[in-house]
Amino acid sequence: MNTQEFPPGEAEHPDTRYMRQALGEAARALGRTSPNPPVGCLIVREGEVVGRGFHPQAGEPHAEVFALREAGERARGATAYVTLEPCSHFGRTPPCVGALIAAGVRRVVVAAEDPNPQVSGRGITELRAAGIEVEVGLLEAEATRQQAGFRSLVTRGRPHVVYKYAATLDGKVAARGEANGPVSGLEARARVMRWRNETDAIAVGAGTILTDDPLLTVRGVPGGRDPRPVIFDRRGRVPPEARALRAGGVLVTGPRTEAGAFEERGVTVVRAASLPDALRQLGALDLSTLLLEGGPTLASAFFEAGLIDEVRALIAPKLLGAGLGPLQGPERSMHAALNLHDVKVEPLGSDVLVSGWLST
Amino acid sequence: MNTQEFPPGEAEHPDTRYMRQALGEAARALGRTSPNPPVGCLIVREGEVVGRGFHPQAGEPHAEVFALREAGERARGATAYVTLEPCSHFGRTPPCVGALIAAGVRRVVVAAEDPNPQVSGRGITELRAAGIEVEVGLLEAEATRQQAGFRSLVTRGRPHVVYKYAATLDGKVAARGEANGPVSGLEARARVMRWRNETDAIAVGAGTILTDDPLLTVRGVPGGRDPRPVIFDRRGRVPPEARALRAGGVLVTGPRTEAGAFEERGVTVVRAASLPDALRQLGALDLSTLLLEGGPTLASAFFEAGLIDEVRALIAPKLLGAGLGPLQGPERSMHAALNLHDVKVEPLGSDVLVSGWLST
Repeated sequence: MNTQEFPPGEAEHPDTRYMRQALGEAARALGRTSPNPPVGCLIVREGEVVGRGFHPQAGEPHAEVFALREAGERARGATAYVTLEPCSHFGRTPPCVGALIAAGVRRVVVAAEDPNPQVSGRGITELRAAGIEVEVGLLEAEATRQQAGFRSLVTRGRPHVVYKYAATLDGKVAARGEANGPVSGLEARARVMRWRNETDAIAVGAGTILTDDPLLTVRGVPGGRDPRPVIFDRRGRVPPEARALRAGGVLVTGPRTEAGAFEERGVTVVRAASLPDALRQLGALDLSTLLLEGGPTLASAFFEAGLIDEVRALIAPKLLGAGLGPLQGPERSMHAALNLHDVKVEPLGSDVLVSGWLST
Repeated sequence: MNTQEFPPGEAEHPDTRYMRQALGEAARALGRTSPNPPVGCLIVREGEVVGRGFHPQAGEPHAEVFALREAGERARGATAYVTLEPCSHFGRTPPCVGALIAAGVRRVVVAAEDPNPQVSGRGITELRAAGIEVEVGLLEAEATRQQAGFRSLVTRGRPHVVYKYAATLDGKVAARGEANGPVSGLEARARVMRWRNETDAIAVGAGTILTDDPLLTVRGVPGGRDPRPVIFDRRGRVPPEARALRAGGVLVTGPRTEAGAFEERGVTVVRAASLPDALRQLGALDLSTLLLEGGPTLASAFFEAGLIDEVRALIAPKLLGAGLGPLQGPERSMHAALNLHDVKVEPLGSDVLVSGWLST
């Protein structure tokens, strides 16, 4: 979900290099496109990039349209690289398949098919029917990960959940019973701000609000915008004055909790019977990605419910001693620990970022 | 303390490259030289390495002697690279300073001075008095870290203590109340075997013995030899049949614990009033390096007493949930967490090794 994953390649196949650039285009609108996916497109003719585009937000044109506009007549006979299968249906905008055919594109390279089983493959079929050469699956893993939020909304009706935490090398996110002192260094904290800028929503629990009263805003990111804060407060402990609960915020609370004071402030109140129910309702609010920044209590509840899809652990090379770990449950044997896949290790200032995926 | 830290340099100054090779020579006898230091020596004449040597074990000749023997007449006018200041006194062997002078060496490059304040600098002074050009301090940090055990014995009378643990990404070394399942992958476990091969002793607590009954031997390392197992059992819970307590093993127990059955088996019994007292007695047994492989209870006691000098954390990219962290105390604020220095991050198979130092 971050643009650093797609550096310009050097010794790789041109197709791969162009698709990587298309992924980079798509990444420019991460966190802005829900319920639509982030999509990027590159038009290349005779080794020259003649058009590029990305889908900026729902209701605006798709990536292909921007790229074709820039290419103009030069799209004729060119290759289009698209990070997601072009749409074949009229939505809020005319279908991109028609635009690609009309522009005279000769070849289309697609990273990933549409996850919606009712339309998946249809765009590709229509392109081929028009005599266009179509290849599917280039950098598919990278593309599906970038589109994880959209795909989660489409296939599961709930946001993709990323658990982010900063821990000491001895696995502590906080000392017991006190406000969180900073664990990570400046580079790691700047990276968290980028993640916030790229997510639809940030989730924390009542404990974090009561202890830290955080703003949960994006700071220090040029062009950044704040994600929607989502406060999980089943027992109704959070006061309406909490700084994160501004207009646009979401309060997730129990089925019968009184929350009129929040609604008056412009906060959306979600009354949920369970955590999966809450996530479905957040999905219905078009929240496709949820950055879980809450403390171990909330994170453990997500984890026990199988609702964590991705983990980003910022490890600070220091030792605390006693304290709270990032997860407190469930009890299981070491043999049954859940393996992450697609693990990345990246030094980040004085810290180390270890990230990986639990779901595909 | 591992040879990987000294890969052959390419674009660096020849002096640095030769000293790195000398450190590599020294590393060949790590864990074999106590109470002496691991020392390496290279003799270089007109860009050609004409002699190399290392100190194999106490009672045998020093590194300089082996290197000078190999160089023979070619040592005349050459440069000697030595990882530790050459000795100027008669110990079990004649002083190396005299050997270097007699061989006609023109220049001596020394990584680190002798840590013993009573002899430190004396060897250098004598070499200079003989008209030999001497430089001191090249790769000094690497050398002092390699000699950490020797330096700890000389300056503090106790072994250098390395706390090694394998933890999940959520900071758990074991599930609660059960035998340790494997946390790390094969590469990480192979690295632990190399560390065992390079340490004088391994320490575990009674809990580890009672739960796992480990052998604490070196397996899969060509030319490997087993370190001395040191079992910390203040309350006398460990049975004499424990597999680690073979002849040569050490049992650290309370001042008045009955331990005759252990002594009969060839186990050295250390009766200590406190952990610092125990470490001083282990130092008196010529144990210069202690690899702490015990569980969190023992490690926390070492940590609270300020007795951990170095940390090697093998982080496995998996999530456990509830479980035991590598340290359980003391309680302190996050602002007071202890920062590691000289931190290294190294991917190791599917795991990540994060290592660093608490003492200098």
